Amino acid sequence: HVRMMLNEMPPSDVAHLLESSPPRARNLLWKLVNVEREGDILNYLNDEIRNHFVDQMAPEHLAQALEGLEVDDLADILGELPESVYLEVMASMSEQDRHRVEAALIFPEDTAGGLMNLDTITVRPKVTVDVVSRYLRMKGLPDTTDSIYVVDTHDRLLGAVSLASLITSRQEVLVEELLNDNVETILATMPANEVAQIFERRDLLSAPVVDEEGRLLGRITIDDVVDVIREEAEHSLMSMAGLDEADDTFAPVWSSARRRAIWLGINLLTVLVAAQVIGIFESTIQVVTALAILQPIVPSMGGVAGTQTLTLVIRGISLGHVVAGNSRWLIMKELGVSVINGILWAVAVGTLTYFWFQDLPQAPMLAISIGGAMVVNLIVGVFAGATLPMILRKFNMDPALSGGVILTTITDVVGFFTLLGFATLFFV
Amino acid sequence: HVRMMLNEMPPSDVAHLLESSPPRARNLLWKLVNVEREGDILNYLNDEIRNHFVDQMAPEHLAQALEGLEVDDLADILGELPESVYLEVMASMSEQDRHRVEAALIFPEDTAGGLMNLDTITVRPKVTVDVVSRYLRMKGLPDTTDSIYVVDTHDRLLGAVSLASLITSRQEVLVEELLNDNVETILATMPANEVAQIFERRDLLSAPVVDEEGRLLGRITIDDVVDVIREEAEHSLMSMAGLDEADDTFAPVWSSARRRAIWLGINLLTVLVAAQVIGIFESTIQVVTALAILQPIVPSMGGVAGTQTLTLVIRGISLGHVVAGNSRWLIMKELGVSVINGILWAVAVGTLTYFWFQDLPQAPMLAISIGGAMVVNLIVGVFAGATLPMILRKFNMDPALSGGVILTTITDVVGFFTLLGFATLFFV
Ligand SMILES: [Mg+2]
Ligand SMILES: [Mg+2]
Ligand SMILES: [Mg+2]
Ligand SMILES: [Mg+2]
Ligand SMILES: [Mg+2]
Ligand SMILES: [Mg+2]
Ligand SMILES: [Mg+2]
Ligand SMILES: [Mg+2]
Ligand SMILES: [Mg+2]
Ligand SMILES: [Mg+2]
Ligand SMILES: [Mg+2]
Ligand SMILES: [Mg+2]
Ligand SMILES: [Mg+2]
Repeated sequence: HVRMMLNEMPPSDVAHLLESSPPRARNLLWKLVNVEREGDILNYLNDEIRNHFVDQMAPEHLAQALEGLEVDDLADILGELPESVYLEVMASMSEQDRHRVEAALIFPEDTAGGLMNLDTITVRPKVTVDVVSRYLRMKGLPDTTDSIYVVDTHDRLLGAVSLASLITSRQEVLVEELLNDNVETILATMPANEVAQIFERRDLLSAPVVDEEGRLLGRITIDDVVDVIREEAEHSLMSMAGLDEADDTFAPVWSSARRRAIWLGINLLTVLVAAQVIGIFESTIQVVTALAILQPIVPSMGGVAGTQTLTLVIRGISLGHVVAGNSRWLIMKELGVSVINGILWAVAVGTLTYFWFQDLPQAPMLAISIGGAMVVNLIVGVFAGATLPMILRKFNMDPALSGGVILTTITDVVGFFTLLGFATLFFV
Repeated sequence: HVRMMLNEMPPSDVAHLLESSPPRARNLLWKLVNVEREGDILNYLNDEIRNHFVDQMAPEHLAQALEGLEVDDLADILGELPESVYLEVMASMSEQDRHRVEAALIFPEDTAGGLMNLDTITVRPKVTVDVVSRYLRMKGLPDTTDSIYVVDTHDRLLGAVSLASLITSRQEVLVEELLNDNVETILATMPANEVAQIFERRDLLSAPVVDEEGRLLGRITIDDVVDVIREEAEHSLMSMAGLDEADDTFAPVWSSARRRAIWLGINLLTVLVAAQVIGIFESTIQVVTALAILQPIVPSMGGVAGTQTLTLVIRGISLGHVVAGNSRWLIMKELGVSVINGILWAVAVGTLTYFWFQDLPQAPMLAISIGGAMVVNLIVGVFAGATLPMILRKFNMDPALSGGVILTTITDVVGFFTLLGFATLFFV
């Protein structure tokens, strides 16, 4: 009964069901899937779960399951296989599929070439709508086809003709009269996130991909671009917490624990540095224990202010809003914000501290120390938040992954150092 | 010169340029835009910047600028106007546009009804492809049209016919023979994020929207769904840092400072609670100053572990992976992860603490205190991270916005309380 239901659901729904199931149920469900549907379902699964299933399949079985997939999807799956399995699967495929996969694997997964499909329909400029219609009737149209492409004898792209214009034209009109030669053309080497921005901004359904000589290589369709957008967005969110967008929500305990341990270990190292900073001022704390109570406030405020700026700048960069020309203005503006908030919260926390510890002779000095530390740490935190993404990108590091850790290490160290340092100046 | 360039760029690129410009340059550029292009550009701008410009425009000017916009986009802009301005703009519009806007504003912006456009093309089942083609030639096809809809005499949706099938059919075929009656139909009241999930999973380009009686109301197109996906993803990312996805990266200093101050104020309240907890144990710290040094470690580790779980669960919910049926399994699994990592890092930090403070007679007790606190806080943090999103949603609160603050308050309080509490048990 479950098997029947499973094999009547669209493959994307089966993938969703598998992604929403704990490991045991997931493995059981997977066994109930018919072989000829496995490829389609694998295509919709997230990377971690897909690799889990693919690892269990024999190469010939995998080759059989993958039959009929679009070449971009095929390349995604085969591209992640270990060399030996990859070669075995390729050996089990038809020669035509093998050539298509090899062509698709030339381009990295995160470029236009890696996203494209080879199922373009091309016509010559001098044929009539009637001829094109008969040609399409014979050949059939692939999914998500909104345009066919017009090429010259050297396969160079001349432009596109939309299905809409074909339908609304009389049969004797020539293709070249319907030609849109202003079509958005994408170079095969363009990064996937730029492709996504073009699709978003131009509201495209598909776009032709060309090589440097302007020859048509394939086309990219909006459904794959939607996946890029989703993955990119998930990446920013998950990376900020040291997770990966491919992470399986329902991964088994041990494999989750192992991965999380690494992130906790990195965090431990950073907080040990902060603890060392406190250690420098142990004798001051011995004299004024109130400092131990006030200790968490300044690092926390600096971390929050810095993280806000960091998040804003990371989003700005990923949307293409923050570029070299305006980053100076942005840094200055964020610094302005930090000065205003630094002073505001310094006064607030200073006043509060004064009244909190008014029975102590050190109350005024504590108030001044924490206020001063607040101003410094907010400015430092925001400056770090604004500049780290740009600096990290220069070193080819991912700001979403490492930015937050580096930022809070800075605000912890500076926060503890300034509070305890100012206090030491006053008390020693 | 700049004016010419500006007025030859596609409106979405002008919007992008405005979004990437500091306020002064932005206002200058906006003045150079031709009036008849203003509406299109407003449509592509993010909410904050759009409202900034709309506020400056006289109602008749605005009505003129908005002429020709798609009704879903029109409704988005008009829906945010103050009542009086809205009425004035409506009064300046043509009667037909007025009716269309009123129809679109019936549905909230974040539902299928709010996303839909009214530009559906409908035909009857018994007409031939030839008749349909002539009808389309006369009427023209709106952007992003991949299907036309077939309705009965009561406007009830019977199904869809794709342009692809029209082109590849002979002229005398009847529409009902090409009818796809299994088309994904969307109820007008469906939340926008569910619409997005359907489009993503089914790789749709457009989908018909119907009312409860199955009558065709309009259609949703993928370009608007892409915007929903982008905004939803940005919302999670920005909310985690207390920002809004509509926030302008280049907002003026004062308005940024004001908004950030609120978030810093909330954070200050939470960290003051943590400081109070430390205050309870002031006398213990006076005896063992090493506790002040070790103090930041446990809250930090609990916060990181909890945030990882929180992020994973928030993503899982937004992807529709985490539902009532599997949330128990997920909570148990995350608790398992936290026990493993709690013990691992308790041993690591305990050992480290022992050797760090081995000159002190309290070294063994310090090691046990911090280890015990670590286990407790990691479990509490992860439990909070797993359950908070579900609890907050029950109270209609946004887990991405408030989840992180509540979580770190919990891990700070529990972290300080357990470390200092265990230490007090041993030393007093
Ligand atoms: Mg996926
Ligand atoms: Mg992949
Ligand atoms: Mg690919
Ligand atoms: Mg768009
Ligand atoms: Mg596809
Ligand atoms: Mg795909
Ligand atoms: Mg594809
Ligand atoms: Mg927008
Ligand atoms: Mg809006
Ligand atoms: Mg709307
Ligand atoms: Mg999809
Ligand atoms: Mg629209
Ligand atoms: Mg739109």
